[in-house]
Amino acid sequence: MMDQRVSLITLGVGDLAAARRFYEALDWHCKEVEETVFVQAGGSAVVLWGREKLAADAGVEDARGDGFGGIALAQNVRSREEVDEVLAAAAAAGATITKPAAETFYGGYAAYFADLDGHLWEIAHNPGFTLEEDGSLVLPF
Amino acid sequence: MMDQRVSLITLGVGDLAAARRFYEALDWHCKEVEETVFVQAGGSAVVLWGREKLAADAGVEDARGDGFGGIALAQNVRSREEVDEVLAAAAAAGATITKPAAETFYGGYAAYFADLDGHLWEIAHNPGFTLEEDGSLVLPF
Repeated sequence: MMDQRVSLITLGVGDLAAARRFYEALDWHCKEVEETVFVQAGGSAVVLWGREKLAADAGVEDARGDGFGGIALAQNVRSREEVDEVLAAAAAAGATITKPAAETFYGGYAAYFADLDGHLWEIAHNPGFTLEEDGSLVLPF
Repeated sequence: MMDQRVSLITLGVGDLAAARRFYEALDWHCKEVEETVFVQAGGSAVVLWGREKLAADAGVEDARGDGFGGIALAQNVRSREEVDEVLAAAAAAGATITKPAAETFYGGYAAYFADLDGHLWEIAHNPGFTLEEDGSLVLPF
């Protein structure tokens, strides 16, 4: 009825140029088309788009957010060192570290940052989840 | 510095059992581990987790949301008919249609629904974006 796939993850942003600079500072390759920034991310794409445009497109009201949109993205990386490296790069680019890197209950190591618009990214090393050569995540169950 | 990948998309939910039933009604195969529901989605996974737990894990305050978290997920499908079919299935499972299916400015056909917790899904047929056999999305630029 509905495939188990996510094609696009669209992050509503207040300042498109600033948001693009933030992700470019993390080495992301951004392509802008009609005031919309696209980033190929494996078999999906991350999109940066004006928050008010996204709300209008979705047919919802763009009331002022409270800083937690009830959603978080995660990127699993290949080592604890890589968690620290990505966090340092994000902080240098202007991110807010909302949770410093620490051991997790599942035997991993993870941290969270919020991007310029408050979108949460967890950067995690989780030895229990397989990361394929191409970066695909495979659940262990 | 940071790979262009999203490993997990975690949706904070108010009622885990209800959220799981919603996605199962759309034919998603859910695996629950320690009050966390995982769904393999291509090379990523969608996770359903208590909203308050997610906020605590991320180190942010779980203030009451306003219904728009500033983010939307999209699933691109292979035909206009499939857009209508997925929307009908979502509505039958309890989703709120926030934007009925309509022509888009880019020559496609799309609609949005909000799941039980207000998470927005756009279901779109976009002839300009390649959908591989395995469901991977490939940007045209």
